[in-house]
Amino acid sequence: MNFRMIAKSLGVVVCIEALCMIPSLVVSLIYGQGDALAFLYSILISIAAGLLMYLVKIKSKNFYARDGFVVVALGWILLSFFGSLPFLFNGAISHPIDAFFETVSGFTTTGSTILREIESLPKGILFWRSFTHWIGGMGVLVFTLAILPSVGASSFHIMKAEATGPSTEKLVPKLGQTAKILYTIYTVMTAIQVILLLIAKMPLYDSLIHAFGSAGTGGFSNRNLSVGAYGNVAAEAIITVFCFLFGVNFSLYFQILKGNIRNFFKDGELRFYAGTVVTAIVFITIQLFSKGLFSFGESLRHSSFQVVTLITTTGYSTTDFNLWPSFSKLILITIMFFGASAGSTGGGLKCIRVVLLLKAARREVARIIHPRAVHTVKSGGKVVDERILSETMAFFFIYLAIFVVSFLIVSLDGKDLTSTVTSVVATISNVGPGLEVVGPMGNYSSFSDLSKVVFSFCMIAGRLELIPMLILFSPQAWKRVSI
Amino acid sequence: MNFRMIAKSLGVVVCIEALCMIPSLVVSLIYGQGDALAFLYSILISIAAGLLMYLVKIKSKNFYARDGFVVVALGWILLSFFGSLPFLFNGAISHPIDAFFETVSGFTTTGSTILREIESLPKGILFWRSFTHWIGGMGVLVFTLAILPSVGASSFHIMKAEATGPSTEKLVPKLGQTAKILYTIYTVMTAIQVILLLIAKMPLYDSLIHAFGSAGTGGFSNRNLSVGAYGNVAAEAIITVFCFLFGVNFSLYFQILKGNIRNFFKDGELRFYAGTVVTAIVFITIQLFSKGLFSFGESLRHSSFQVVTLITTTGYSTTDFNLWPSFSKLILITIMFFGASAGSTGGGLKCIRVVLLLKAARREVARIIHPRAVHTVKSGGKVVDERILSETMAFFFIYLAIFVVSFLIVSLDGKDLTSTVTSVVATISNVGPGLEVVGPMGNYSSFSDLSKVVFSFCMIAGRLELIPMLILFSPQAWKRVSI
Repeated sequence: MNFRMIAKSLGVVVCIEALCMIPSLVVSLIYGQGDALAFLYSILISIAAGLLMYLVKIKSKNFYARDGFVVVALGWILLSFFGSLPFLFNGAISHPIDAFFETVSGFTTTGSTILREIESLPKGILFWRSFTHWIGGMGVLVFTLAILPSVGASSFHIMKAEATGPSTEKLVPKLGQTAKILYTIYTVMTAIQVILLLIAKMPLYDSLIHAFGSAGTGGFSNRNLSVGAYGNVAAEAIITVFCFLFGVNFSLYFQILKGNIRNFFKDGELRFYAGTVVTAIVFITIQLFSKGLFSFGESLRHSSFQVVTLITTTGYSTTDFNLWPSFSKLILITIMFFGASAGSTGGGLKCIRVVLLLKAARREVARIIHPRAVHTVKSGGKVVDERILSETMAFFFIYLAIFVVSFLIVSLDGKDLTSTVTSVVATISNVGPGLEVVGPMGNYSSFSDLSKVVFSFCMIAGRLELIPMLILFSPQAWKRVSI
Repeated sequence: MNFRMIAKSLGVVVCIEALCMIPSLVVSLIYGQGDALAFLYSILISIAAGLLMYLVKIKSKNFYARDGFVVVALGWILLSFFGSLPFLFNGAISHPIDAFFETVSGFTTTGSTILREIESLPKGILFWRSFTHWIGGMGVLVFTLAILPSVGASSFHIMKAEATGPSTEKLVPKLGQTAKILYTIYTVMTAIQVILLLIAKMPLYDSLIHAFGSAGTGGFSNRNLSVGAYGNVAAEAIITVFCFLFGVNFSLYFQILKGNIRNFFKDGELRFYAGTVVTAIVFITIQLFSKGLFSFGESLRHSSFQVVTLITTTGYSTTDFNLWPSFSKLILITIMFFGASAGSTGGGLKCIRVVLLLKAARREVARIIHPRAVHTVKSGGKVVDERILSETMAFFFIYLAIFVVSFLIVSLDGKDLTSTVTSVVATISNVGPGLEVVGPMGNYSSFSDLSKVVFSFCMIAGRLELIPMLILFSPQAWKRVSI
């Protein structure tokens, strides 16, 4: 481990975070609700700490993939630590673990909250809370589409590149250039959403908050009743569409920019993602309507909104889906596990992995029926490397293993089974709300500190595709010997 | 597909079943509760139908692995169909789907019941109900340890052979001989259990019923309160130990017979299985005691009994574990998924698969930390073939996929989430009871016919390691062209 280099890199991250707090400082000055000082202190402390780390002298330039993963994992943790300072200084959240949980939830674009009451908080604080979603979403895009391929460390990305047709090299001539393209697409899409929400007569401040939440597929709102508080069908439709769009692999948008619109619509993951959304909406609409919960129009409206915000792991709500019948709720839990597309700001397992796992499973059956034939798994017309398949399956199993260990720990709090299990699903998949206690009208405040730490781990592990967090806690990685 | 050969083989199966009904006929004559005629009719119909199928003329001797799998899948379905006749003729169960469900539950050694009241039924009927467990358990042993390796169709078995040290050839010089060894071990162990239960002062009839239930890891009792009805600690201890023993890979007993006792204790799966049992007992005992539910001794007694009967997928109960705290309940659900050892009468995913999946997952992390090293997965000191790993992972995913589709269908009944999800876990893992509605004091009677059909599918698919049922319903397998 190159500790000095790791410290230096983290210093840069913390300094950038300090700069990211400036817009929130401006907002707090505009509204004058007494939260400006909290930001000022936080900015000064973050810059001081960041510079201190940055000034560490580097002795060796050796920097391996595992060092990079440690930077990413620690980076997300440090971001959340310093990002929680404004909440603490302002007193909006008084308990440090609660503040850390809330900030992790922000940066990982999860949207789970420990706040029972949101609307009374100062606007600057709420702006920062949602802005962390936007920063986190951008961070994830850069991490999965620019950094991972450039270190060549993640074959999950290579898989993605093979699956969608466009090869990674085309999108990544240089790390900085790729990052810039991503920033631009991301920012322009967010800006368009803000403008559309304004046209739909949502106030500017609220439009920004909900555009940040949609872009990062996070889900923090400035209203206790989330998007449902507005009763604004146009705004709901805009948020639905944009959540869906932010759940698409951004390398596909790059294809569109290059004029390859056919590649966009031919993409297997996109088709599966869209197909799942449509199927889930149809089934839930039919059930809600046939059970007489809503009129047909309302059933379609709520089911579309909920399916899209949950599969993209955003987690906004327009109604209390915790009260829906079991069948609808189980569909929602299932798509929370699926998640959005790889290379998007959405969390979860990712559709491409579900597709590959289904294909690998089908192959095993075919192998037994026709033992003498050669069986390969294809994606986007190309044969998928066996190594990638076995990695995808291992990833899935690690995901479930973390899930099981987490819900066992959280169950010590003695909540009912549905709350326990769905709270872990909602955090590891970066969704936000679950069911019962953590349903759309509930929150995470009643869990123990231990559970909140477990949730924070799940959120970061889920966000970073597990591996960096596992390396951070793997004794093997900390040995000085290199094999 | 060689339909004629398939029909002929199934004819033999049905005729054997008719013979298996004779002991129940004898029991019903002894007790004279009016159920003897039901058995007589069932035996005559089964023999007639069996002979009719057996007399089909064979045109071709070509018999592929897929034909074999179809025989096995249809065999289990036909066994359950003809096996349900006594219940229908006697009127103990009046609805054909209920009778089919109950018989599937018997032959697959699941132990889920649709009966609300058991003790009022005639003794012959209850004997048949439990005897199906014993037949089913033996059928599974022969299927997984004698038939599968001899057709070379299942690398799951080859995997097992590699993992435990003894090679398959040694256990399988000839199919018939292996089957004979298995019959003998199984019958002798059952007989010892009956004798011990008699010594523990359980009546002969009840001893037979509970020995059948333990041997097949089934779980049908002749008492409404299951084993808890006796309040007999010695009998509970005997059942606990024997359930554990019937959950061990039978090829290990073969090792003992050959004098290789070291191989027995060196086996990786056995260690994982025993380790999981001990760990689960310790955690649950601590929670039950610390929450003040029972004295320490009672906590240990109930947790040991419940952990062993649930991990072995037997499903007997001494207390209503549905009332235990969330943490304990989630441990129980987790071990239900794990299941017992491969090559035992137990169901579930099987410990060896969990071990291999954990090792495969650990390897992925190691690969990223040390990308230049060669990483293999070892089991029992030998490198596990990559093909077997990828098959194991695919198996796991198929298992989950069936699980998800099933609970979505069952959720249409509108039961609470815990009942819906655990009823599917309990049937696909061949456990029997789940939680809430299907808890140890509940039953499956209130589900719709559709759900009962789904449960029946899950029980058979889980019992036969999924593949035969998937082939039966795979259009590819029914094409006449062979590739």
